[in-house]
Amino acid sequence: MDCLLSRLPCVRAAVEPYSSSVSSEHAQLAGVALASLLAVYVGYLYILSRREAAVTFNVPLPQEVRKSGDGKKWDDIQGQEKRILEDQARGKWNDKLIMSYCPADGRVLGNGIKPATVEDVNTAVRAAKDAQREFAKTTFAERRQIIRTLLKYVLDHQDDIVTACCLDSGKTKVDASFGEILVTAEKLKWTIDHGEKALLPSRRPTNFLMMYKKNMVTYEPLGVVAACVSWNYPFHNFIGPVISALFTGNAVVVKPSEQTAWCTSFFLDIVRGALSSCGYSRDLVQTVVCLPSVADTLTSHPDIAHITFIGSRPVAHHVCASAAKALIPVCVELGGKDPSVILDDSRTVRNLPTIASILMRGVFQSAGQNCIGVERIIALPDSYDKLISLVEPRIKSLRLGSILLDATTPDMGAMISPASFDKLESLIAEAVKQGARLLAGGKRIQHPVHSHGHYFAPTLLVDVTRNMRIAQEELFAPVFLVLRADSVPDAISIANSTIYALGASVFGHNASDVQACVSGIEAGMVSVNDFGAYYAVQLPFGGVKGSGYGRFAGDEGLRGLCNLKAVCVDRFPTLVGTAIPPRVDYPIHKGGEKDGVKAWEMCKGVVETGYQITIGGWIAGLFRLLGNM
Amino acid sequence: MDCLLSRLPCVRAAVEPYSSSVSSEHAQLAGVALASLLAVYVGYLYILSRREAAVTFNVPLPQEVRKSGDGKKWDDIQGQEKRILEDQARGKWNDKLIMSYCPADGRVLGNGIKPATVEDVNTAVRAAKDAQREFAKTTFAERRQIIRTLLKYVLDHQDDIVTACCLDSGKTKVDASFGEILVTAEKLKWTIDHGEKALLPSRRPTNFLMMYKKNMVTYEPLGVVAACVSWNYPFHNFIGPVISALFTGNAVVVKPSEQTAWCTSFFLDIVRGALSSCGYSRDLVQTVVCLPSVADTLTSHPDIAHITFIGSRPVAHHVCASAAKALIPVCVELGGKDPSVILDDSRTVRNLPTIASILMRGVFQSAGQNCIGVERIIALPDSYDKLISLVEPRIKSLRLGSILLDATTPDMGAMISPASFDKLESLIAEAVKQGARLLAGGKRIQHPVHSHGHYFAPTLLVDVTRNMRIAQEELFAPVFLVLRADSVPDAISIANSTIYALGASVFGHNASDVQACVSGIEAGMVSVNDFGAYYAVQLPFGGVKGSGYGRFAGDEGLRGLCNLKAVCVDRFPTLVGTAIPPRVDYPIHKGGEKDGVKAWEMCKGVVETGYQITIGGWIAGLFRLLGNM
Repeated sequence: MDCLLSRLPCVRAAVEPYSSSVSSEHAQLAGVALASLLAVYVGYLYILSRREAAVTFNVPLPQEVRKSGDGKKWDDIQGQEKRILEDQARGKWNDKLIMSYCPADGRVLGNGIKPATVEDVNTAVRAAKDAQREFAKTTFAERRQIIRTLLKYVLDHQDDIVTACCLDSGKTKVDASFGEILVTAEKLKWTIDHGEKALLPSRRPTNFLMMYKKNMVTYEPLGVVAACVSWNYPFHNFIGPVISALFTGNAVVVKPSEQTAWCTSFFLDIVRGALSSCGYSRDLVQTVVCLPSVADTLTSHPDIAHITFIGSRPVAHHVCASAAKALIPVCVELGGKDPSVILDDSRTVRNLPTIASILMRGVFQSAGQNCIGVERIIALPDSYDKLISLVEPRIKSLRLGSILLDATTPDMGAMISPASFDKLESLIAEAVKQGARLLAGGKRIQHPVHSHGHYFAPTLLVDVTRNMRIAQEELFAPVFLVLRADSVPDAISIANSTIYALGASVFGHNASDVQACVSGIEAGMVSVNDFGAYYAVQLPFGGVKGSGYGRFAGDEGLRGLCNLKAVCVDRFPTLVGTAIPPRVDYPIHKGGEKDGVKAWEMCKGVVETGYQITIGGWIAGLFRLLGNM
Repeated sequence: MDCLLSRLPCVRAAVEPYSSSVSSEHAQLAGVALASLLAVYVGYLYILSRREAAVTFNVPLPQEVRKSGDGKKWDDIQGQEKRILEDQARGKWNDKLIMSYCPADGRVLGNGIKPATVEDVNTAVRAAKDAQREFAKTTFAERRQIIRTLLKYVLDHQDDIVTACCLDSGKTKVDASFGEILVTAEKLKWTIDHGEKALLPSRRPTNFLMMYKKNMVTYEPLGVVAACVSWNYPFHNFIGPVISALFTGNAVVVKPSEQTAWCTSFFLDIVRGALSSCGYSRDLVQTVVCLPSVADTLTSHPDIAHITFIGSRPVAHHVCASAAKALIPVCVELGGKDPSVILDDSRTVRNLPTIASILMRGVFQSAGQNCIGVERIIALPDSYDKLISLVEPRIKSLRLGSILLDATTPDMGAMISPASFDKLESLIAEAVKQGARLLAGGKRIQHPVHSHGHYFAPTLLVDVTRNMRIAQEELFAPVFLVLRADSVPDAISIANSTIYALGASVFGHNASDVQACVSGIEAGMVSVNDFGAYYAVQLPFGGVKGSGYGRFAGDEGLRGLCNLKAVCVDRFPTLVGTAIPPRVDYPIHKGGEKDGVKAWEMCKGVVETGYQITIGGWIAGLFRLLGNM
């Protein structure tokens, strides 16, 4: 799943004892340094705004976004549509019509969408393929203009995009800001600043025998790529693969989740608006909303060169089996059971209030429906009780609701559907029976105002042990789960005790303990004294073990959508080139009885000359080579 | 398939007109430069020989390698073994016994091998997994010692290794030198010289909001990796994945081809000898020789973290579908139909004799059983006839046979089996019917001495057109196939007219035409004025389109066997860290009516401060942020 960054970069003054020794002179110096830094940044912004300037464009806003109080009420829907809605909420989908509704308050969005057929998928791929032929020739500067145009739109329309996300997924606006807008702006800006560097030809070394060669790797578009993405960040998950695909010169077909089909059509309009306002074909980006049987057509389509899959393990098995039919590479991004290890050196214990705030965001961001959400807090003895006493009252005070309708401020939004509620309640009950203590929540909530909303109570479950099922399975829910570790090695061993290995974090200030956790925890990504920070700087994203393979984001993400072309040329083409020595030139037999022996001896000499590791061996090899040429 | 390098780095003096103007002074300077270069190289060898010194070890040589005239004759075998041998030659395998024989002369090697069972595979994976736990902690210097020890063994035992390869695959010693020894020595030396650099932590940029963070990517072992490799280079294909796996700290299970099971057990002894003589567990490297039904256990084993597959498309479908069951990433290396484009600028036309020699090696190396063998020569008008007249007499003069037995020098060895002969003959006949001209060979050969050898005549087929089946399907055979192109764009279009895109080469001296070919031809690897040179410098190896995906060799090959761990830490941990601003700290509602609105406005301000592209927008964002904190 895509992920979301739910942290804020807030500079915190150090509160260490020695900070009191900072003199006013130092403070002045720091002030000058900061001012210079800001001046440089402003200069950089000036240059940026003049080059490859963003184009301003507009797209029609959906009625429900224009007036966020609008929308048909769930109870006003009748007949077949009503049945479809009720089935969907139970996880059953109709292959003729997909209805969209807001999980926070149950209002119905739009008029439903007809799922794509096999023919629709083929048409989409064909149109993308046709459009890509021309687009492959664009320069990085031209592609950057599209990216900058998108960034400008996002910055100018934060409210509209966030409203659409909140409506279709039930999250709060603050959650949407972190998980949809901030990370998208970061990806766009990173691509503008660092994308071209990642795709410039990369020089490679040569060797002694081939010293007259010059070697490099170039990165070329693949053609049409696909992305099957999850519903938890409908804007970011959709536009992330689009940004990478367009910048690498590819066209892209995105299969969004049925759960968030309504807002995706608005987001598609935005991307296509940017494309056409910059003078490129709208066909470069396609979406197909479809059920699994039809999705197979996309994931085994001979014209699809790469698939990014963000979803669950059971679905990944199908997607990879389908991709095997056409031998399409897949970047597989699955779930996690991300551990957060809280060490207990004295500074960390003093910092626990700050850490508690970061962990709360790590757990309750998007109601826990976050692939890099903190699923397990593993605390060492001296942190354990204090941490629990810090978060307990705060978790109990969290308010649930719809940010768009409620007069009061909800802290947490709805869950996408009630499909996981039975399992969650039974896992919690089972853990309690096995000795865990339930200090808050633990069950679904019938919201007093939004009777058709899907809400789960913010939960605090402590004294969890590693073998409980709740400590093994991904919950994707607002559950603050605390496990006790006896020592650093014990914490690492608990952290590694699930099948998953996606993200992880460690909070501590003893450098060697922190390093032991960073290298010892099996994960694709680790933040130190922070949560999910790696995603806010576009480090490559992905996991190992049961969390999948491949990376999106960062250099690796862009290169993964390219053909890596290895190129070997002559360094001095007018002076030196390759020629086959007469001794091994076909026909090898030139008439002498010893031709074969001499050819073989010469070959041995070549190998020794090229690769001997001792001086004696090298000289002997050189003589063997020269003596048999 | 693995590939082979069949070229020799031979410095050829430029014969251009201006070279006559080189004065003796220049020659002296060049001499001094060359001498200095050699002195530096000798110094480097000295340092190399002192560090992480190679260990000398020995392994028992198979009887047939000690006395290369030995071995049971095919006709001496009776009963069930005889039936098994005959079935194998027809491509039918017995699940109780695999017999080995030499395709060049039919002699039987060893006493047969019992194919691995499901339990054998599980045992091998378990042993590898146990051994890897300790091995993961080794340093690069320690792993380099193993690699250097292997290099020393290879250099000291070129004859033995090559003899084993020739016996089991039927190739000549010269072919084995290029395809088994030279490329293996190169891979070992490259790993010694550049492996650690490729796996050092890689620094990554940060951004304005996160300027207090330090970001990097580290490369960690995956655990146990697998490699399913093909028979065409039994030594190199086996040891290549072993080198990469060991250097990245992994254990490895190799499934060699049934066709070359006999020599693989010798090669396994070599690798294990290096491991134990350096003090490591022999269990780190395992082989399982098994039939497809059992191979499925390996390719869907939950403890296998990565698969390198080198083979054909039909088998790749099965392997990828099997890997989907356990969600294992696969590096898929399939066949090719590698084009070699011959331009016709005047210098290139003058160079045609040199080019012809390179192409002959590109086509007939290992009897064409080379995944980056030249499968199509695409010549422009002024090169076309001259090239054909140059190669025709040479192809006709090639002699076939066994280098180990024959008194005369054979130029080309045997094919691994006669399984493809019917298809080859029919494709050639069909092409001739459609207008191609057969100038040499075209059919299987009953060798006068080696009646049980599998030989196919060196073939020259010209006037081939792109739509003929023979121009579309991979032949993996000694066929020099010539197509005529009208122009450079036409040549590129012909080059791209198959489903494959593995290697390619272009011969020419008009820079813009050459560049058009390098970037226009769909391929994973391109050599200019050379054949397969990219493999002799360890550039990343792999293809696109129907040739598979993923890369082995080079930086990418090593990193592909690692967990890329993204790590984000504080740059000044004692001074600045992350803290959640009170405005968005849970619970967000602190009692004020506007809490929710202010939190959202602050978030918008954060995004604008971090990502605005205009100075005005940035200042407005900063004020919005500060005004709502």
